[in-house]
Amino acid sequence: MKVGVYGLGRFGRFWAGILSRDFDVYGYNRSGINDPPEKVALVSEKDLFTCDSVFLCVAISSLEEVLLRIRSFMHSNLTILDTCSVKVYPAEKMKEILPDHVTIIGTHPMFGPDSGKNGIEGLPLVFSPVRGDAGSFDVWRRYFNKKYLDVIEISPAEHDREAAYTQGVTHFIGRVLKDLDLKESRIGTRGYRALLNIVEQTCNDPLQLFMDLQHYNAYTHEMRSSLSQSISKTMKMLEDADPVRGGV
Amino acid sequence: MKVGVYGLGRFGRFWAGILSRDFDVYGYNRSGINDPPEKVALVSEKDLFTCDSVFLCVAISSLEEVLLRIRSFMHSNLTILDTCSVKVYPAEKMKEILPDHVTIIGTHPMFGPDSGKNGIEGLPLVFSPVRGDAGSFDVWRRYFNKKYLDVIEISPAEHDREAAYTQGVTHFIGRVLKDLDLKESRIGTRGYRALLNIVEQTCNDPLQLFMDLQHYNAYTHEMRSSLSQSISKTMKMLEDADPVRGGV
Repeated sequence: MKVGVYGLGRFGRFWAGILSRDFDVYGYNRSGINDPPEKVALVSEKDLFTCDSVFLCVAISSLEEVLLRIRSFMHSNLTILDTCSVKVYPAEKMKEILPDHVTIIGTHPMFGPDSGKNGIEGLPLVFSPVRGDAGSFDVWRRYFNKKYLDVIEISPAEHDREAAYTQGVTHFIGRVLKDLDLKESRIGTRGYRALLNIVEQTCNDPLQLFMDLQHYNAYTHEMRSSLSQSISKTMKMLEDADPVRGGV
Repeated sequence: MKVGVYGLGRFGRFWAGILSRDFDVYGYNRSGINDPPEKVALVSEKDLFTCDSVFLCVAISSLEEVLLRIRSFMHSNLTILDTCSVKVYPAEKMKEILPDHVTIIGTHPMFGPDSGKNGIEGLPLVFSPVRGDAGSFDVWRRYFNKKYLDVIEISPAEHDREAAYTQGVTHFIGRVLKDLDLKESRIGTRGYRALLNIVEQTCNDPLQLFMDLQHYNAYTHEMRSSLSQSISKTMKMLEDADPVRGGV
């Protein structure tokens, strides 16, 4: 089976490297590169879509533009899999823009070159068949299971609702505390050190990813509004109970 | 040397147990108890102050009332050490209420029966001599070092400023996220799991401690106001850049 990877950024290179252990892998990157991952053959944008399946490893905010560029290259047995960290928006855009004969699968590999550097066994991958050939769904479901990934098969909407309150909250808190410019401290408790760790991890990712995670997941709006309420409630509880207002 | 522990709640019992390995320890608890820690002799409130040094292990919000009760029991060579999680407020109150001849030391043992259950070696203890006999300061400084604690000698103000941005921020975030009622999730990232852990750890402590940490540390007001600003800034950045407002 020939597998294509569209987008050889940090994640795309990593993912192409993993796939190349089991498939003939072809890669394409819009801003030309000359150091593809080992065993990955660079091809033209058009030729990439002669593969049986193609993974899109592009930023969420570039997805629509990419789909409009590639729609005319689609042959009849093609499977397109996106790898975005939100799932409803890509599923809707792929259904809308790609020809009806194309099989579509949403995936969210919840790891990258850092967390997966010692192997991807046991790491979670969200798997959401969107439309098309059940045989192709099976091929990929079996493959991910064979790689000992923790395959979580849920709908795009279930993914986004849950992600808003997990990765969405985590990244939001990370960015807020980054802005607060917290420092290492000798009197930092274990909990505080864990908090500094979260800031570092979340802010290691590009700011664009943070923005995209919040914008392209419709449930984060509700999450941010609930979070604002919890913050106001906590602030108010402290003010109402203050026994020494202005006194200490 | 005879050492007293005033207040045999969860921390006081733990602390008395540690001290009893090296000193004759006497304990007193206002709401009488009949199961003192092993090797700790229960005495009357008045008799407790025949000890050479007495640790106050009471809630920050009870401190003033306790100082007013005990001030008349002070003999001339007495050293009083508080163990509160804020340091400016107890130092001011002890200086104000206790007779001039009493030596005063502020301590903040940054551990408790949970974190110290396998030994206290290496754990941090903040040490702030406030006034009085340098000899007594030395005795306690040497003792804490002998127990292999990480003795951090800073002023009460330095402690409170730093604590507002370490334990203060951590507990505030913990309480806010507790209110948001976050759940375990199969798609939770490592960062998210760390966040759930912080919620659990901080909310294991009594709500009163959270309130007291915020109220009796004058720097937490500034911290909460900076935190509010960082939150608003992050919310605004997302809104300003939103490419799909109301669209997804």
